[in-house]
Parts: sequence; C-alpha cells; structure tokens
Amino acid sequence: MGYQPPVRDHRFVLRDVLAIEQYANLPGFAEASYDTVEQILDEAARFNAEVLAPLNPVGDKVGCAWSPDNTVATPPGFKDAYKALVEGGWPALGADPAWGGQGLPAVVNLAVSEMSSSANMAFSMYPGLTHGAYSAILAGGSDAQKALYLPRLASGQWSGTMNLTEPQCGTDLGLLRTKATPVGDGTYRITGQKIWISGGEHDLAENIVHLVLARIKGAPAGTRGISLFVVPKFIPGPDGALGARNAVVCAGLDEKMGIHGNATCVMAYDEATGWLVGEENRGLAIMFVMMNEARLGVGLQGLSQGEAAYQAAAAFARDRLQGRSLTGPKNPDGPADPILVHPDVRRMLLDARAILEGGRAFLLWTALCGDLARVHPDEGQRRRCEDYMGLMTPVLKGYLTDRGFAICSDAMQIHGGSGFTEHFPASQYLRDSRITMIYEGTNGIQALDLVGRKLAANGGRAVMTFFGEIDAFVAGHADETALKPFVEALSDTKAKLQDATMWLMQNGLSNPDNAAAASTDYLHLFGLTGLAYMWALMAKAAGGRIAEGDADPFYANKVHVGRHFLERILPGAGAHLARIKSGAATMMGFPNEAF
Amino acid sequence: MGYQPPVRDHRFVLRDVLAIEQYANLPGFAEASYDTVEQILDEAARFNAEVLAPLNPVGDKVGCAWSPDNTVATPPGFKDAYKALVEGGWPALGADPAWGGQGLPAVVNLAVSEMSSSANMAFSMYPGLTHGAYSAILAGGSDAQKALYLPRLASGQWSGTMNLTEPQCGTDLGLLRTKATPVGDGTYRITGQKIWISGGEHDLAENIVHLVLARIKGAPAGTRGISLFVVPKFIPGPDGALGARNAVVCAGLDEKMGIHGNATCVMAYDEATGWLVGEENRGLAIMFVMMNEARLGVGLQGLSQGEAAYQAAAAFARDRLQGRSLTGPKNPDGPADPILVHPDVRRMLLDARAILEGGRAFLLWTALCGDLARVHPDEGQRRRCEDYMGLMTPVLKGYLTDRGFAICSDAMQIHGGSGFTEHFPASQYLRDSRITMIYEGTNGIQALDLVGRKLAANGGRAVMTFFGEIDAFVAGHADETALKPFVEALSDTKAKLQDATMWLMQNGLSNPDNAAAASTDYLHLFGLTGLAYMWALMAKAAGGRIAEGDADPFYANKVHVGRHFLERILPGAGAHLARIKSGAATMMGFPNEAF
Repeated sequence: MGYQPPVRDHRFVLRDVLAIEQYANLPGFAEASYDTVEQILDEAARFNAEVLAPLNPVGDKVGCAWSPDNTVATPPGFKDAYKALVEGGWPALGADPAWGGQGLPAVVNLAVSEMSSSANMAFSMYPGLTHGAYSAILAGGSDAQKALYLPRLASGQWSGTMNLTEPQCGTDLGLLRTKATPVGDGTYRITGQKIWISGGEHDLAENIVHLVLARIKGAPAGTRGISLFVVPKFIPGPDGALGARNAVVCAGLDEKMGIHGNATCVMAYDEATGWLVGEENRGLAIMFVMMNEARLGVGLQGLSQGEAAYQAAAAFARDRLQGRSLTGPKNPDGPADPILVHPDVRRMLLDARAILEGGRAFLLWTALCGDLARVHPDEGQRRRCEDYMGLMTPVLKGYLTDRGFAICSDAMQIHGGSGFTEHFPASQYLRDSRITMIYEGTNGIQALDLVGRKLAANGGRAVMTFFGEIDAFVAGHADETALKPFVEALSDTKAKLQDATMWLMQNGLSNPDNAAAASTDYLHLFGLTGLAYMWALMAKAAGGRIAEGDADPFYANKVHVGRHFLERILPGAGAHLARIKSGAATMMGFPNEAF
Repeated sequence: MGYQPPVRDHRFVLRDVLAIEQYANLPGFAEASYDTVEQILDEAARFNAEVLAPLNPVGDKVGCAWSPDNTVATPPGFKDAYKALVEGGWPALGADPAWGGQGLPAVVNLAVSEMSSSANMAFSMYPGLTHGAYSAILAGGSDAQKALYLPRLASGQWSGTMNLTEPQCGTDLGLLRTKATPVGDGTYRITGQKIWISGGEHDLAENIVHLVLARIKGAPAGTRGISLFVVPKFIPGPDGALGARNAVVCAGLDEKMGIHGNATCVMAYDEATGWLVGEENRGLAIMFVMMNEARLGVGLQGLSQGEAAYQAAAAFARDRLQGRSLTGPKNPDGPADPILVHPDVRRMLLDARAILEGGRAFLLWTALCGDLARVHPDEGQRRRCEDYMGLMTPVLKGYLTDRGFAICSDAMQIHGGSGFTEHFPASQYLRDSRITMIYEGTNGIQALDLVGRKLAANGGRAVMTFFGEIDAFVAGHADETALKPFVEALSDTKAKLQDATMWLMQNGLSNPDNAAAASTDYLHLFGLTGLAYMWALMAKAAGGRIAEGDADPFYANKVHVGRHFLERILPGAGAHLARIKSGAATMMGFPNEAF
C-alpha cells in the first residue's frame, strides 16, 4: 500500500481545531461549505493516491531527458497525469474566480497541496511554480497581462516558472546580470543565462510563461535596478493563440541528488522578447510576493516528504519480522516479532508524528491567517493575520524542512539496510526532501529574515501579538486539569522564546552578528513554540470531542501523540536558548585562515 | 584543491594528547618510534590525497558493473589504485608481523584509515572488509587456515568479505537459513543466498575469501546453531596456488543511495565448498570479533565523511562571493564578500570542527585502549582498556555516524543550491555517509548494545571506571584557571550521564522497555561526555604547548574550537537527559494499529 493522504487529520484540523465553519459568511469560505470541503479532500485524496503517487518512483528512476533540440521529455506517465490534473480542475482550486479559479480558501487549498506534494513532489512542482507565476502577474501585471495570462495559468493550460538565479548570483540578487533592452514598441530584448530553473522546459503544457528578473540598461546597480519581465516560450496573441517561438531555450539539465522528475534547467535568453511586469526597477517587490507564497509552499513540501516517509516506515515496521520484544514475544506464532514492538522504532515513528501533526496544524493555522488577512471584516484581525503571515513564513519554511529531512532520515533508519537500497521508497524521500532546506532562500536566509526583518517590523508588533495570544490561552485554560501538561509546557516554551527575543533585542541591535549567530536556533525555538501552541489547541479540541462522547479513537490517539511531543520533542527548547545566549564572539573571533 | 588529510591534527592527538611515546617500550610501539609514525602519516597523506581521492567522484558516478557471467567491474582507476595500495604495503600496516604485517599499533593505523576513508570510502571498504576477514581467521582459524589465508589477506593479495545478511535475516541472525552439509572429508557444502555483501565480487584481487555464517544440518535453531565457514572464490592449494572456481557467484548488485564504487552483492552459494572456522555452532562469537573491529571502523567512516565534507564546505565558503557582512564589507574591492563572513556559515563550520576534532581524539584514545589491552604490562590497565574498548565501541559507532551525517548535511547547506547538484562533492558525502548509521548494526542496535549489555557487564565496572577517571581529572585540574570552563563543563556533563545511568539502573531492569526507549539519547549523552573529556584533554595539551612558548597558532585555534564545543554542542546534553527520564510508557502505550 502506497501513500495514503491523511484526510482524517486534515478534517480534524479544519473542523475541530480551526473551526473554519465560523467563517462561512466570508468571501471564499461562503462558496465552500464544510461539507463541500470534505468532498474536495476526499476527491483530492483519491486523485493523488491513484494518479500521482504511483508515478513518484518512476520520476525518480527515469528522470527528465534533455535533447540537443533543447526539448525536455518528462518521465513516462507525467504527461497523462498532467492532462488529468488540468481536466480535474485541480490547479484552479485556489485561484480567483475572476480568472477562472474556484476561489477556495488557502487553508483548504493547502491541505490539497500537501497531498500532491507527498504523492509526487517533483511532479507537483510544475503546477506549484505555475501558481507562483500566476501570483506574480496577479500582483504586478497590467490588465492586459492579467487577461492574457491569468486564466491560462490558473487552469494549468500554460505553465509558469520563476527565473532568479544566475551562476554568480543566488541569494545575493544584487549581482544579477541578465540584461533587458527596450525595443521601443513596449517590448524588451532579454539576454542572459539563468540556472536552476524548475520546470524551465518540459512537454506537459502548450506554453511556458517565464517570469524573469533582469536589469534594464542604465538601471542602478544592486537590488534597486532589477525589473521583472514576462517571457513566454511561444509569443501569444491577445486571444492566447500561440505565435512565434521566443528566443529562450533550455540549454541543459542539472544533475541533482533528488527531485529527478522535475526538470531543473539552464535557461539561455538570447534577445528573447519580454514584457515588463509592474514598474521599472521594482521587480524584486513583485517577486517577493511570489517568493513568500513559495516559501510557505516549501515548508509544506518538507512536511509532505516527512509524512510520506513516515507512512512508508510505519508500514515497514508493521511488516518486517526481526527479533523479539524485550518483554516477551508479541507474535509467538511467527518466526519473529514485527520491529514495531521495539521502543526505539516507536520513538522514531512518534517523533515523526509529533512534528508532522503539529506542523500540519501550524501550516493550516497560518494559511487561514492568509485568508483572513484578505477577507476578515475587522481591520484589527486583518492586521493581526497579516502580521502572522509575515512572521510565520520563515519559521515554517525553515523549521518544517529541517525537521522533514530529519524525519525522512529516521524513516530510512527504520528500514535498516533496505532503506539504503533504491528498492524501497526511503531513499527517494530523503533525497527529494533535502532540496527544501535550500531553495526559495536557504534556511539560514529564513533565519536571518526572521531575526533581522520580521521580528523588528512595526516595532515588534507581530511577535508581541503572538506572545499575547499565547498568554491569553494559558490564562484562559489554567484550571483545566486535562490540558494542564500542554498549557504548562506551552507557557514554559513561550517564556524561553520571549527570553531569547529579549536577548536578541539587547544584543542583536548593537552587534548584528549576535542576531545572525543566534538566528537558526531562534528559528527552531520559534518552531517549537508554534508547535507547542498547536498541540495545546489540538489537545483541547480532541479533549472536547471526547468529553462530548465521541468514541472515535482518533481523539485519544491525538492526545497521546501530543504527550509524546511534550516528552520527547520539547526538551530541545532549552538547548536552543543556551546556544542563542552564547553569542557570536567565539565564532567571529576564529581566524578565517584556520577554517 | 581536494581532500587534504588532517595530519597536523593527527600529530597533535598522538603526540601532545595521548603522548604515545610513553609506550615506546611496548610491543608494536617499539617498532615505530614517533618519528617513524610521523613519516608514515605523511606518506599516507600523500598516497590518499593523490591516488584515492581523485577516484572518489569517479566511483560515485560510474559505479560498479555486473555482467551476466557474474563478474563485477569496479569503476575506472580502482584496479590500478588497488595495485598501488598493495604494492605500497598499506593493507599490512596494522597486521601481525608473524603474518607479514608491519605490526603498527592500532592507534596509528586508525589515523591512516581515516585518511583512506575520507579520500574514498567506497574504495577503502575493499581492504577494510579484507582486514575483517583477516581478524576472523586470526581469532578462530586453525593453524593451517592461518598459514594459508592470513599472509595473503594481510597483504591484500587476496580480499575478504563478511557474509551474514539474508533476505529474511539482518539484525536477527537467529533466522539464518544458509545450510552447511558435511561432506565427510573435512569440507562442507554451503548452500544459500546472502545479500548486501560488500566487495562480494570485483576485479581487484586474484581471490576473494568469503567468511560465511551458515547452519550445519541438525544444528540447534536460533543463534546457537550458527557456524562460521571460509569459502574461497578459487579453492587454493596449501601453497596458495589457485585451483578450481568455487560454486559461489555474485547474482547481482544492489542499487543503492551511495557508496556506488563498492560492489554490494547478492551472493548465491550452490553447494560451494567451505571449511569450518573454529568450532561447530560457535560461529557468532568469532564473527563478533570481526564485528567489533568493524564497528569502530564504521564510526571512523562517519567521522571521515564529515571531515571530507567539512573541507569541501570550508573551501566553498572561502571562494563563494555572495552578499555582504552584516558589520560592513570585508572584501570591499570584490563584488561581494565570501560567505565565510556570515555567522550562520561559521556556526556550521565550527560545529563540524568541534565534533570532528573531539571525535578524532575519542577514536584514537579508544584505539590506544585497544593496543594497551593487548600489550600493557599491568593487568589492571589491560583490564581497564579492555573494558573501555567494549564500552566505547557502540558509542563511537552510533554517535560519530549520526553526527557525521549531520555534518555532511550542514556541508551541503553551506554549498546552497550547488550542493544539491552532482557537480560539487557535497551530495556524494551526504549519500555515502548515510549507510554508516545503518550497517554493522544500526545505531539503534548500538544503543541497545550499550544500555543492555555494555553497561551491565561485570556489574557496571567499565562505566564506573570511566566516571572515576573523569572525577580524578576534574579534581586534579580544579585550580587551573585556563582549563576552568572545560573542567566545569566536563564535570556537569558527566554528572548528567551519571544521573541517566542511575535512572537506567532503577528503571531499566524492572522494565527493559525503559532502557530501550532511553537508549539512543543515552548513547548521545555518552558521546557528548566522551567528547567533553577529550576537549578537556586537548585544551590541557594545547595550553601546555602555549605555556611552553610554542607559537604555532594551531594550539590557540584548538582551544578556540573547544570553546565553541562548550557553547554550541554541549547544551544538547540536558535535552537528552530529559528525554531519557520520560520513560517508555507513552511510546509503548500507543496502539499498534494507530501507527
């Protein structure tokens, strides 16, 4: 049995924890009653388990193939699956109805995206990047650009890409060299080389819409001279009819450790025709709209690989007979017990569950903030939600991808020697998940974004609001015996995070190296605090169902995994605080030549 | 510049920390003065950097090729390198002079082995397994078997393998099915299938000597009915002349995530001729001699991959220009600063150094125990050293492979997107290192060996001796200001380990699940304590050199890395203790069907 989407858990978070029905009067939510949401989740589960999941190992083993005519063939089966994806209307789920989308809230769309990313991460990147291109044009495009591109990107009829990186310029976009020369007719000639372009060329869609960062001749140096262009593979007429082949080609594919099913392209622009998106020299601002959305999506990818790897490991642990339980045989009629009897195997599986279920709630809670930031009638709530989106995006990207990779490694460990062979799925999950810690801004960049930008924004308003929300929860639930361990642990972890935040304010402003030296530990301490809050919310919701007499063992199991989180994951918080407070002096004082 | 063997650090540990010259009157040490040792290290460094390291990426990319005639071709260049290895006498370095070896102490041999494993882990496994076969025959073979096999295995003229695993039987050797039928002439017919046999077939040596676990007809079930056989690929005459091809073939290679340069073989035995090694049904005891040696070697592999990956990452961080230092440009004339200026990059590099340098000392210290257990004139010292070898083997195997893999992951992270491509070495180190956590007993098995067997042996004598040794060091250095942070941290960490040990005694005996649930955290807490002790010893040795007026910056840098260890690595100890004390109840109480 392959990957099974965790629909039961999605339903629990959406209904019992976030109670999304309470927003039924708001735009987006109004169109999707909770019953409809459940139907969508079930259908998505079927599609992803039956169509995308079986192609995952094929994509890994066969990979993409580049030909000297600059075409790229995706792995066997991808083309049909993409056709089924588009016909099923899946790419349009979260897009604006004005552009042919179904306008589903992001919180629901995220649950569906988790499924496709678990089922086949390399495949899901094609529609994922397309949605990024959609968002960039939605944010910065002209009316004509919107009318031409958005419906076709929303449906998946055309696909999209993000073109930022060049050989000399990854994190530091100020070093960007790709040139844009105005022709005089409103178009530009784009020339340069871009690397690591996911989905830069393939055979899935009839057109590929490249969003390209380039520098207009005479623009200021550095990041203030970068503009955004739309460069379609085939130049469309205003009616969308495909015209001439544009002068942008895939010059080759990068050989990489994982996500072999996604074409990672070197793109050569040789006086390709492009159109400016938004204003001159303001391209980065639009790209960051796209990027923020993408970062949340990458956090989701980290979670999704952890989930799929967990499922494979749990199945292996149930099936593999080896050795006996330390407390006497549990499968006395068999040659040995399943390895699930061993505490250390259960430890790894429950560690995974504690992170995955907490992380899933944290992601969905944040995605709901994204929805409410747009549609909540109360301005204060919109501001709070907007603040949280900004604050949590680097936390979720960094924390969930670091932990997702660690879960994939534990999943391989549970497989023993089998896991290291390519006959079992553990290796692919481990290899595929590793990129999530790197792309869309390495996790080190996320940590810097958190301590250097997000904490400080608006005088620290976002983090103070978050602390206040936790304090209110703790105060409001101090007397509930069943919740006590969760509330106490939350209070304790939040106190550590607040302590660390104070330390950063006192030491990071005078010496930014102190903030940067603390940043990764701070991000992880933040992640732990977020998960502690989610586990308190989940324990409350599950406890509520149990108190109502709901006999579904799901709820007791949920609280059980929560206890494991308190016992086995949260103890890491103190170590993060100690590391944060150790400062930057030792690492900065080490002589460069001695590394 | 590729991998550069860390000879300076080896010299420091051997001379300044372990002061191996003090043993110059003992067998083995007597033959190798410290000057000779330095010459050997330098020569080994040259050989490994120049001959083996350049073949490492070739081995990864080309891999081994199986042909339908059951032969296996190693990657281009491996054959010549193996010839050079044998001609250089490297395999014989640590072997007994009685069998053609050079009789070098294990502590020196280990330093050389680290180099070959860093330079080319997949290649180094061929002589590594050969030495294992040598050790098994040395431990259990008859005089005739010794005379026939040992000189040829010691030199590397013939290579060796360990055949334990079968499809249904990995960790649980009691499930072993391979059959041995006595022929009546002193030989046996061996029939069965073995999997994951490293170096089971290849084109490097003229003969391959398989050490095979099998069950003699009528033997007791389980682990008490397993015997060890020697099954040569070509049946040799008493003079070593190669005779008939034996009925053992490589039926195929396993596709795996890493170590592509090493042939991982499915071996088919079809009435192959074998000779009993040692007594009937006592094969496991001899195999465990081999296994213990191999486990220390695998800990070394974990360290070795971390070291090579660290070097690649440090070189990348010096070269890659991207962004500016938070405290103002450090490379104002260049387009950007090298990423080495960023605290989070330095954190990862120094984390690696703190583990690698501490781990190297811990490994060499333990290997010296192995030497002294054999040759020390004092019986008490021999016993102490023997105890430590047993106690530290699972700690070093588990701790250094877990941390080695984590270092390889950080090294990839420092490379950014480049690291995920196969154009840089980071991916290979990450993939190759991952197997070390699995083979020769998964790290979970190491942890069980530690808490279930090694702690309890002789009434806990080994661990009590270790605690006593640390207490004596702490008491003896309480007044040395320069050492104070190291001594205090050591005392504190040892107190945590002792606390955990007490908890295990009180809770693990009554319920073994408590011990098993705690085992991995206990192993890591033990590893941290071992490293804390090594860092105290190293800080003392380096401080001594500085006090003597030695101006080599190596010594100040050593103390500097030690401070990083105290600030950034040791804080994890408290979390391990908290997890250990949380017990097994939650993880064992979770319903099996809910995983």
